[in-house]
Amino acid sequence: LIAAELSRALIGAYRTALPPEVSREAKRSLFNVLGVAIGGARHEGVDIIIEAGRRFGAEAIAAIPGRTELGDPQTAALATGFAAHVDDFDDTHLVTVIHPASTAVAALFGVAPLAPVSGAEALRAFALGCEAQLRVGVAISPEHYDRGWHITGTCGVIGAAAAAGLILGLNEDALARAIALSANAALGHREAFGTMTKPFHPGKGGANGLLCALLARAGVDAPSDALEAANGFTHVFSSRVDLAEITGDFGARWELLSNTYKPYPCGIVAHPAIDAALALAPQVGAIAQIASVEVRCHPLVPELMGNPNPVDGLQARFSAIHGVSAALCDRTVGLAQYETARVRSSDAVAVRAKTRLVPDQTTRRDEARIRLELADGRVLETHVEHARGSLARPLTDEELHAKVAALVEPQLGDVTEAIADAVHTLDAAPSLQSLLTCVTGRTATRV
Amino acid sequence: LIAAELSRALIGAYRTALPPEVSREAKRSLFNVLGVAIGGARHEGVDIIIEAGRRFGAEAIAAIPGRTELGDPQTAALATGFAAHVDDFDDTHLVTVIHPASTAVAALFGVAPLAPVSGAEALRAFALGCEAQLRVGVAISPEHYDRGWHITGTCGVIGAAAAAGLILGLNEDALARAIALSANAALGHREAFGTMTKPFHPGKGGANGLLCALLARAGVDAPSDALEAANGFTHVFSSRVDLAEITGDFGARWELLSNTYKPYPCGIVAHPAIDAALALAPQVGAIAQIASVEVRCHPLVPELMGNPNPVDGLQARFSAIHGVSAALCDRTVGLAQYETARVRSSDAVAVRAKTRLVPDQTTRRDEARIRLELADGRVLETHVEHARGSLARPLTDEELHAKVAALVEPQLGDVTEAIADAVHTLDAAPSLQSLLTCVTGRTATRV
Repeated sequence: LIAAELSRALIGAYRTALPPEVSREAKRSLFNVLGVAIGGARHEGVDIIIEAGRRFGAEAIAAIPGRTELGDPQTAALATGFAAHVDDFDDTHLVTVIHPASTAVAALFGVAPLAPVSGAEALRAFALGCEAQLRVGVAISPEHYDRGWHITGTCGVIGAAAAAGLILGLNEDALARAIALSANAALGHREAFGTMTKPFHPGKGGANGLLCALLARAGVDAPSDALEAANGFTHVFSSRVDLAEITGDFGARWELLSNTYKPYPCGIVAHPAIDAALALAPQVGAIAQIASVEVRCHPLVPELMGNPNPVDGLQARFSAIHGVSAALCDRTVGLAQYETARVRSSDAVAVRAKTRLVPDQTTRRDEARIRLELADGRVLETHVEHARGSLARPLTDEELHAKVAALVEPQLGDVTEAIADAVHTLDAAPSLQSLLTCVTGRTATRV
Repeated sequence: LIAAELSRALIGAYRTALPPEVSREAKRSLFNVLGVAIGGARHEGVDIIIEAGRRFGAEAIAAIPGRTELGDPQTAALATGFAAHVDDFDDTHLVTVIHPASTAVAALFGVAPLAPVSGAEALRAFALGCEAQLRVGVAISPEHYDRGWHITGTCGVIGAAAAAGLILGLNEDALARAIALSANAALGHREAFGTMTKPFHPGKGGANGLLCALLARAGVDAPSDALEAANGFTHVFSSRVDLAEITGDFGARWELLSNTYKPYPCGIVAHPAIDAALALAPQVGAIAQIASVEVRCHPLVPELMGNPNPVDGLQARFSAIHGVSAALCDRTVGLAQYETARVRSSDAVAVRAKTRLVPDQTTRRDEARIRLELADGRVLETHVEHARGSLARPLTDEELHAKVAALVEPQLGDVTEAIADAVHTLDAAPSLQSLLTCVTGRTATRV
């Protein structure tokens, strides 16, 4: 009975200090996702979610990153997960393409007012919420994603149930039922990419997981073989399943250690090319001097992000040509480069028209080359062996800090240091309170 | 764009009086499901759901059939859909095996306090909530169910979004987005059968559909091709899809007219055999006189409900042998025959031990024969050509009334006439208020 085994493994790990490298990666994941969620916190979709929660008449008791308003727990989870994913800027577990922190942080913020826990417990529940969904995701990958499922929503709900269930103090039986019930509340199709329905998936997955944990604690039962049965989660969702991945070496081997953080708010396959363009940009001089840009890249880049002329910010997130052009024009690639006005501006349009992608089977996924010809005949070339944010070249703590600062400061002002401190000392904090306070902008000073 | 077409068809139908036969069937469906929901309203799962809603701090404004407490809209939807399905006693659209009224009534009760509508509008929204999910279900059947999905949860969420969206007054664009968003909140695996997770599906489907309608009205966007795209609802959920079923002849042809109402609270394939046993029961005399019972039936009966010796009420719901034995012992088959104590009682155990199922390829699904030998050598035989509650022999209005009365009266006392009146005059009522009042037991007198 896999749900029971997973429950036992989770509770065992929850009662033990995280290994130092896991604690470090959990904090990096949490810091990153909080920055991204704050960056997305003013998106109209978040406004809508908070307002819809109010229409339900729910009492607002739960914090939401980047917002001064509180929400009821399910609304806070939905808003937090939505904001964390709306800019496609969060994190990626490359083997599964899961963005694990969005649902885990959604559950964490939703459940926070329902059960008092120490900072160390909150960090462990967050880490284990990520780990549970990644383990299940590995067991059904890549066939699950290939069949059209948005794996962040489907596996994420299990991570949310795990994180919320641990914080609510569920025993092994109840946590197993929470996991099984949440497996019946999984959601999200890939067709939603490019719409607000995509970030709805981790938001709703977070809210659903939280609800399942509460219902299971109170006694709702669920099929004990929900994960492995022929009509259960793994086999319904995938044509190839390796159940041993779910609990094998749990606590010793951590998928969370393979989490990566996006340096650019767009599809990850374009990141090596953007790196290359950023490396060349200072040598270009006047943009009008560019005669042609040839990007030699892995064949997935044109396949997944081949759009040569996106018309808005959402489309641009799935255009490698826009990413390269924006890097050349602006010498930086952040949220501003994906605003619709910037996407439509004449210099970006002009450089895009001169840029083409050349798929190359010998190029790795985290590798790219650019050859750039200028009007005066000069040729600039560069080769990125491993993209920033790849497993071979993870974002440094300093790069991560700079990314979060750029997201947080336009929203909340000078609180990045306070958030960084609250995350990095979370395992010594008596509660989540300091962190909740500084990410909601209720204080602009160091806590 | 199928979601837009379906939205247009739904809004067109919502603005038109229902054809008389559709209005009649909608009322029968509503009356039936309210009876079943009231019958299930004291299940511990409903207690848990209402209490969990309170823990979320939500303001209670929405009625729940069979309960005096109110719930917040999502909790009321979850509780209503759960109660409507927890006894496996609701309704069945035989072609798809969808139980359509459970999610539709869940959405109706959840949305009721959020938008004032006339009784006629409420009835139409309920009918169209059923129709929308049945249309989508036909388009992906039978492969969808065969792949392990509980179609009542997956298609039901679309029906719930439709019913709630119509009542909330969504325009065509918003209703199309609500449908597309809800297609991304579909849920439920068949492995859940036999646990509280099964009725969780229509409950959560109802709550999710309601949330999607509210979010779409406020502007959340969704993929316009969510239903027909390769990575969208129909193709992700089924290996064979007939999109023309979704909107073809909408308003002229009604799948709702093929809804049927269960006379017995157990799997429908056992119903012909139970009919036969009830027909013979008065001739049997003392139960101890039974020497053997041979049930000649469609092969699906032993395949789906072959359990010869269930140990509790939930298992008994999937045991045709228990249904036949209970009919012979008690001369009636209702909720009482599926209480665990009754399932374990010595006379039921003894008759089950003498009863066997004989699968027969020439027997139709709604047909059965029983041959019963008594200790004195007498042989009793009967043949049921069409089971009660089948399409060929639908429950009469009187039978439906008797079913609902047996469910309602232990819960709310003598209010069945009042509920029947409120349902049958709903299309002339200024609002849903009379119906909401009498199904919650706040009045025991005719309204």
